[in-house]
Amino acid sequence: MTLADLSVVEQRGAVCAPAGFRAAGVACGIKKSGAADLALIVSDRPAAAAAVFTLNKAQAAPVIVSKARLAASGGRVRAIAINSGCANACTGPEGTATANAMADAAAAAAGCDPGEVLIASTGVIGVALDRERVIRGIAQAAQALDRNGGAAAARAIMTTDPFPKEAAVGVETAGGRFSVGGIAKGSGMIEPMMATMLAVVTTDAAVSPGLLQRALGAAADVTFNAISVDGEPSTNDCVFALANGASGISLGEAEYGVLLEALRLVCEPLALGIVRGGEGATKLVTIDVTGARSDAEAKRAARAIANSPLVKTAVHGADPNWGRLVAVAGRAGVDFSLEHACVRIGDVVLFAGGRPFDDRAPEASEHLRASDVSLHVDLGTDGAGTARMWTCDLSAEYVRINAEYRT
Amino acid sequence: MTLADLSVVEQRGAVCAPAGFRAAGVACGIKKSGAADLALIVSDRPAAAAAVFTLNKAQAAPVIVSKARLAASGGRVRAIAINSGCANACTGPEGTATANAMADAAAAAAGCDPGEVLIASTGVIGVALDRERVIRGIAQAAQALDRNGGAAAARAIMTTDPFPKEAAVGVETAGGRFSVGGIAKGSGMIEPMMATMLAVVTTDAAVSPGLLQRALGAAADVTFNAISVDGEPSTNDCVFALANGASGISLGEAEYGVLLEALRLVCEPLALGIVRGGEGATKLVTIDVTGARSDAEAKRAARAIANSPLVKTAVHGADPNWGRLVAVAGRAGVDFSLEHACVRIGDVVLFAGGRPFDDRAPEASEHLRASDVSLHVDLGTDGAGTARMWTCDLSAEYVRINAEYRT
Repeated sequence: MTLADLSVVEQRGAVCAPAGFRAAGVACGIKKSGAADLALIVSDRPAAAAAVFTLNKAQAAPVIVSKARLAASGGRVRAIAINSGCANACTGPEGTATANAMADAAAAAAGCDPGEVLIASTGVIGVALDRERVIRGIAQAAQALDRNGGAAAARAIMTTDPFPKEAAVGVETAGGRFSVGGIAKGSGMIEPMMATMLAVVTTDAAVSPGLLQRALGAAADVTFNAISVDGEPSTNDCVFALANGASGISLGEAEYGVLLEALRLVCEPLALGIVRGGEGATKLVTIDVTGARSDAEAKRAARAIANSPLVKTAVHGADPNWGRLVAVAGRAGVDFSLEHACVRIGDVVLFAGGRPFDDRAPEASEHLRASDVSLHVDLGTDGAGTARMWTCDLSAEYVRINAEYRT
Repeated sequence: MTLADLSVVEQRGAVCAPAGFRAAGVACGIKKSGAADLALIVSDRPAAAAAVFTLNKAQAAPVIVSKARLAASGGRVRAIAINSGCANACTGPEGTATANAMADAAAAAAGCDPGEVLIASTGVIGVALDRERVIRGIAQAAQALDRNGGAAAARAIMTTDPFPKEAAVGVETAGGRFSVGGIAKGSGMIEPMMATMLAVVTTDAAVSPGLLQRALGAAADVTFNAISVDGEPSTNDCVFALANGASGISLGEAEYGVLLEALRLVCEPLALGIVRGGEGATKLVTIDVTGARSDAEAKRAARAIANSPLVKTAVHGADPNWGRLVAVAGRAGVDFSLEHACVRIGDVVLFAGGRPFDDRAPEASEHLRASDVSLHVDLGTDGAGTARMWTCDLSAEYVRINAEYRT
């Protein structure tokens, strides 16, 4: 099975699109609003598991606990429990004890070994997570587990995301079909002290934990790690993947390319959904960098552009301000040739060969008025490095949202 | 002469406070508004010169020309010409020719060798600088040179800075008094495509070019390089220093500490003026980082905090959001211990020993309502590294200013 054979269909059901998964989303009182705040996802059989965690050194209790249990389980997991409304971060030993109790409750709910669970939390930092409520919520969710529970789970992990993020694909192979599904929540600090990018991806293909980890890392690199709302990785970010083999399709080293592509096809729309739902966002901005000394240098330049407040405000105002793109590329700490650099907004070349083409500005401004816009900077080196990132614009609404009194 | 003997008095006159300097600021039509847009500063005798230039790889023509002339002159300079309203950046070979013509005109005006001049430009990127106007402006400024022209020069280098930045001190020594004066303009992109931090510092002490360069670099490191409005170094940033010896006081290697302190005393208020005048700024924020593995790691963490939109919006809203400070410190790429870290807003400890003190939030919020606020993060390592940076808050006004149509 190679990439050339790949035939893909979109599916419904999010994390329950793959066979052998059930999910639920319930309200257990962590959110004062009474909205759903607990998601449980259970595989009918042990699944290979992989995870990508935040690199932030201020790691929340659920991150520490999930890392430990995943390592102890040898990469086999049955259940994932996620609460929203409280991040259980910066909460000391008490917070770690609550995270462990949450994991134990998830194992009891799934009827599995305490080591075979992953947990995540998202919401306010520095506030204790109510242990009784989260344990009761998990028991309640266990009763509600359903083959059609994917959408409810996607809603229960939201903090103040404007919409839930779910995606699923079916992949036709010579031996039959396997599916990949996923849910995610946004990283935008849409409410003060609310943060965290979380995603869960499931598949009914059989994959070894090692191969799943490698593919998840690679897929996250070009999707979740290629987006930026405000350049602020949180204390709780994580992406989990489970592969339970229920489809009967087995993916080994020879099918790595197919596995990676299938994961990417689910992770990309989830990641773009996070950007579209970013705080105050009105536009999805695709940034392509070419002509870099290496892919790593291209990514560094693309990230600098994605996080530049001057670029993001210009896009917000539909100002075809190519000078800001040149200035950011020049300060990104990568090889750059002003003489050979080229800047395009949409299809319009605004700077090339060391000189501007300002008469084309109105056409570029027209492009920037759309809700999906693209920026392309060629760094002008003789290297072939490229990178793509996605970001949103920076609006006055972002400031209003994040400057509101928390107290 | 040592630091212990230092006796300092504030002075008026900006770059003309030191003896032997004359300055002028005139309008030559580069700015459409008719406001002053050309500053000329001339030393009556050859002065030792030093310069700190932007590290941006997209360097504007005046940066390239000033670097070349300074290198060729062996560090001796008589005149500095600066225009505002046009950055002469990304303007190709034509722009470089205009910059050279500008430098030649400055040399003719000062009656010195073409190598003994420095130039700078600030304003719109990617637009040609009108060669005739700038040359005519320099001739006009030469006629207006005056011992009292420092304030006019400070005004002529403004783009849309809300106020001019000038400072001067007199330093009493056993052998008499020497003075240091300076002017600066802000880096905030207060008008779309307007950028650049520029500063000129003069002294009538006699200093060798090498020692002046070393002291200027060190002074800039803890002043101009320790501020951030939006984390966007421009294509034209530069700081120039001239030392003409007119006071009769000579500062050698043994007086390096005094020279550095005198430069710092002028550069710090100029730098803080740039932050206070930052686009949309309503608060000056002092950030202290301690408990770092090294000074370099402390500076890296302080810079991450200074550039964090979540920290800057929280300060804007007087929200004592210590969780964001912890999260940014944790992702700054430096050694960090959540268990031993400590966060203070003003004098109020909000997080220490791994746990929050949220009952103190109202007191911290009160502190954040002032126009000068302070944040202190101890990274909790057993190192002794420290750093201080200054930034401003991020307001909806910043977005409005920078999202406006340029076209």
